[in-house]
Amino acid sequence: MLSVKTPEEVLAIIESEFAPLPGRAEAVPLRAAVGRVLAEDITAGEYVPAFDRSTVDGYAVRAGDTFGCSDAVPAILSLRGQVQMGQGADKPLEPDCCIAVPTGGEVPSGADSVVMLEYAEDYGDGSIGIARAAAPGQNMIFKGDDVYPGKPVLEKGRLLADRDVGALAAIGRVQVPVVKRPRVGIISTGDELVPPEQSPGPGQIRDVNGPMLQAMFAAAGAEVEYYGIIKDEQEQLEAAVKAAAAACDMVVISGGSSVGVKDATCRIIEALGTLLLHGIAIKPGKPTILGKCGIKPIVGLPGHPVAAYFVTKLFILPLLNRLMGQKTPVFTVTAYLSESMSANHGRAQYQCVRLREEQGRLVAFPIRGKSGLITTLAGADGFFCIDRDCEGLPENAEIQVITQ
Amino acid sequence: MLSVKTPEEVLAIIESEFAPLPGRAEAVPLRAAVGRVLAEDITAGEYVPAFDRSTVDGYAVRAGDTFGCSDAVPAILSLRGQVQMGQGADKPLEPDCCIAVPTGGEVPSGADSVVMLEYAEDYGDGSIGIARAAAPGQNMIFKGDDVYPGKPVLEKGRLLADRDVGALAAIGRVQVPVVKRPRVGIISTGDELVPPEQSPGPGQIRDVNGPMLQAMFAAAGAEVEYYGIIKDEQEQLEAAVKAAAAACDMVVISGGSSVGVKDATCRIIEALGTLLLHGIAIKPGKPTILGKCGIKPIVGLPGHPVAAYFVTKLFILPLLNRLMGQKTPVFTVTAYLSESMSANHGRAQYQCVRLREEQGRLVAFPIRGKSGLITTLAGADGFFCIDRDCEGLPENAEIQVITQ
Repeated sequence: MLSVKTPEEVLAIIESEFAPLPGRAEAVPLRAAVGRVLAEDITAGEYVPAFDRSTVDGYAVRAGDTFGCSDAVPAILSLRGQVQMGQGADKPLEPDCCIAVPTGGEVPSGADSVVMLEYAEDYGDGSIGIARAAAPGQNMIFKGDDVYPGKPVLEKGRLLADRDVGALAAIGRVQVPVVKRPRVGIISTGDELVPPEQSPGPGQIRDVNGPMLQAMFAAAGAEVEYYGIIKDEQEQLEAAVKAAAAACDMVVISGGSSVGVKDATCRIIEALGTLLLHGIAIKPGKPTILGKCGIKPIVGLPGHPVAAYFVTKLFILPLLNRLMGQKTPVFTVTAYLSESMSANHGRAQYQCVRLREEQGRLVAFPIRGKSGLITTLAGADGFFCIDRDCEGLPENAEIQVITQ
Repeated sequence: MLSVKTPEEVLAIIESEFAPLPGRAEAVPLRAAVGRVLAEDITAGEYVPAFDRSTVDGYAVRAGDTFGCSDAVPAILSLRGQVQMGQGADKPLEPDCCIAVPTGGEVPSGADSVVMLEYAEDYGDGSIGIARAAAPGQNMIFKGDDVYPGKPVLEKGRLLADRDVGALAAIGRVQVPVVKRPRVGIISTGDELVPPEQSPGPGQIRDVNGPMLQAMFAAAGAEVEYYGIIKDEQEQLEAAVKAAAAACDMVVISGGSSVGVKDATCRIIEALGTLLLHGIAIKPGKPTILGKCGIKPIVGLPGHPVAAYFVTKLFILPLLNRLMGQKTPVFTVTAYLSESMSANHGRAQYQCVRLREEQGRLVAFPIRGKSGLITTLAGADGFFCIDRDCEGLPENAEIQVITQ
C-alpha cells in the first residue's frame, strides 16, 4: 500500500521518475516561437552588429582631431563624403577629416567616435567646424557589442517569451528549435457524466473535467487527444487506457466520483507498469494516482473538478514540463488577505482569490463556496496555498498568489 | 507641434481615443477558449447541480430520525434500496427509512442529510444501524449550490484563464463567445534592413522588429499581416500604410533609424487621419508616433528593437487590448535589486532583469549592456520601471517586476 505523499514528495517523484522525452526537437518559424520550449542552447554564430555603427546623426571623426576645440575655437575638419544607410563605408577616414554618418550607419575605419550634428557646423566650403571635443567610442556601437560568435544567447529548456524573439531574429535564427508538443490522452470516467453539450437527465451531470483538462493541457503546450467518457467498468477503461498509452506520451484519467474507478485505475496501472503514488496530502485533491508505463506517465485525477484543477496545475502540468524539459520558474504575486481564513491542519490547502488594488497594495479576496464548487475557480485571478502546518491566516496576512 | 507625453498621458489618450471594435464576437469551442477575450457576460441558465447530491458514500436519511443516536444506542432505519450513479432517485424517503447513496449520487426527496458509511452498520436483515447523529444538510450539495439561473459566472472583457473553462463546461457553454482576433498590419522600414533569414551585406543589418512584433502581437491575440520591409521613401511607405489600413484593424510601422521615416510617418498619418501624439517620455522608446485613421490606430514605433519592444509592451499591446475590450490587469512580482541602478532624471526608464530566489526572497539582476542592445531583452524574466522623478535605486531596493 502506497502512503499519501506531501506535495514536495510528489514533485521529487516526478523529477526522479520522469525525464525529458528524447529526440523531440522540431523547427518553428520565429513568429510561432512564443510559448514554445527551446530544444537546444542558442549560441550566436556571427557579430551583431557586423560593423561599427553610429547611434546618432553626425560626423565620424578621429577623436584626437577634436581635442581642445570649443564654440569659440572649433576644430576644422575636411568633409570627405557621406555614408549612406544600408551601404558600407567604402573608404577609411584620414586625419583631420570627417565623414557624415546617419544614425545606424557604418562608421568608417580610422574613425573612433561620432560628433552629433548639433555640435557641428557645415561651412559650405567642404569643411566642417566641430565645437565639442569627442571622446573615443562616443556615440558608437562597436562590431560585436551585442553578440559575437560563441556568445550564449538563450538556454535550452526556456519557455520562449516575446522578449526572446528579437535576439533570435538579430542572429538570423529564423527557424527556432523547439520541443515538439507532447501528446496527452485524456479519458473521462463516471457513469453520471454526459458530454457538456448534452442536457443532463435525472442523476446526471455534465462532464466538466474533460473540456477543462483539454484546455489546460493545450494551453500548457501539449497536443491533446480526447478519448471521451468511459463507463465505470474495468474492461472498457483498460481498453481505453491501453489505446491512449500506445498513441500518446502521457495518459490522464479523470476519475468519476465512485471508488470503483479509482481501484480500476490502480489495477490497470499495475498491470501495464508501475504505480508510483496513491494520494497527495492537499486539499482539495487527495485522491490522485500516478504511475508509469515504460517512460509514459499514467495519471488518475480526482473526479471533483476543483480538485482535478489543482492537482493538474500543481503536479501534472509540472510533469508535462518535465517531459518537455521546460525549466522556466513560476513567479508569485504578493498580496494581503481581505479576511481571516481557517485551514485544515495536516493538508496543504489551496484557495482561489480575486485580486484588487486598494490604497497602493494588492488585496486578495478569497472566493468562498462549499468545497468542490466549480464556480470557486471561475473568474479567479489566481490562488494561494495555506501550508499544511498552518491552522489559519489572519486578515491582512501577506500571501503569495500564483496568477498564471 | 505635439509635445512629448508621459506614460500616463499616453494611456489616457488610448482610453479616450479608441474603443472596443463593434460587432466582433465569434464562437470558439471550450478547448480553444483559454487566452481569448470573453465577448459577453456569461450568466448561468440552469441549476448546477440540477439535483441534491451526496458528497460521500453513505445513507440518505432524515436528520431528525438520527437525533440522539450513538455507538451504544444506534438509530435503526429501514433500508429502502440504493441510488445508482447517473440515475435519479426514483422514490422519496419515508420516515425511519434510509437509502444507500454513492458519492455524487442523487439524494432522494424527503432526505435532508447523508450519513457516511463509516458511521453505519448493515445488519443484513434490511435494517441499518446509524451510530452518529446527522445534522440537516450534512454531506450534501443542494440543487443550485454552485450555480442557478441568472447567476453571473464570468464578465465580458475577461482574458479567459484555464480556471474559467470548468465553469463554462458545467453550465453547458461549449461554444464560448469571444472577441474575434483583431487584424494587425506590420510594416518594417529602413534602407539598412534585410530580412532576418538573409545574410547582411556591408552596412546592412537584419530586420529584428518585423519578426519580434509579429510574435508579440500574435501572442497577445491578434491576427498578424506582415507587409515586409519598405524603403525609406514617402510614396512607397504611404502606399503600404494605405493598403494595411484598408485591410487591418491597426497598422504598426516599425521605423528605420532615419529621421526621414519618422517625418514621413507623421505626414502620412496627417494625410489619412489625425496625429495623436509624437514622443513618449520613456527610456528607451521616446520617438513613438500614434495617430488614427477613422477608428483604426496607426502606430509609428522606434527603430531601435529594445525601444520598439518596450513601447509595444507598455502602450501598443494595451491599445490592442482596448480594441478587444480586454480588461484583465497585469500583476507584478516583488523583487529586490542585486545592485544599485542609476537613472536618467526626467524619463521613466525600463530595465530588463533576471530573477533568482536567494535566501527566501526574489533577487532581480539587471541585464546590463549599452542602450539598444537586443540581447539585453533575451533571456530576461521580466522588466521594471524606474520612475521619471527617481534619480536611481540603491542595492536591495524593492521593485515591482512585470514578468508577462
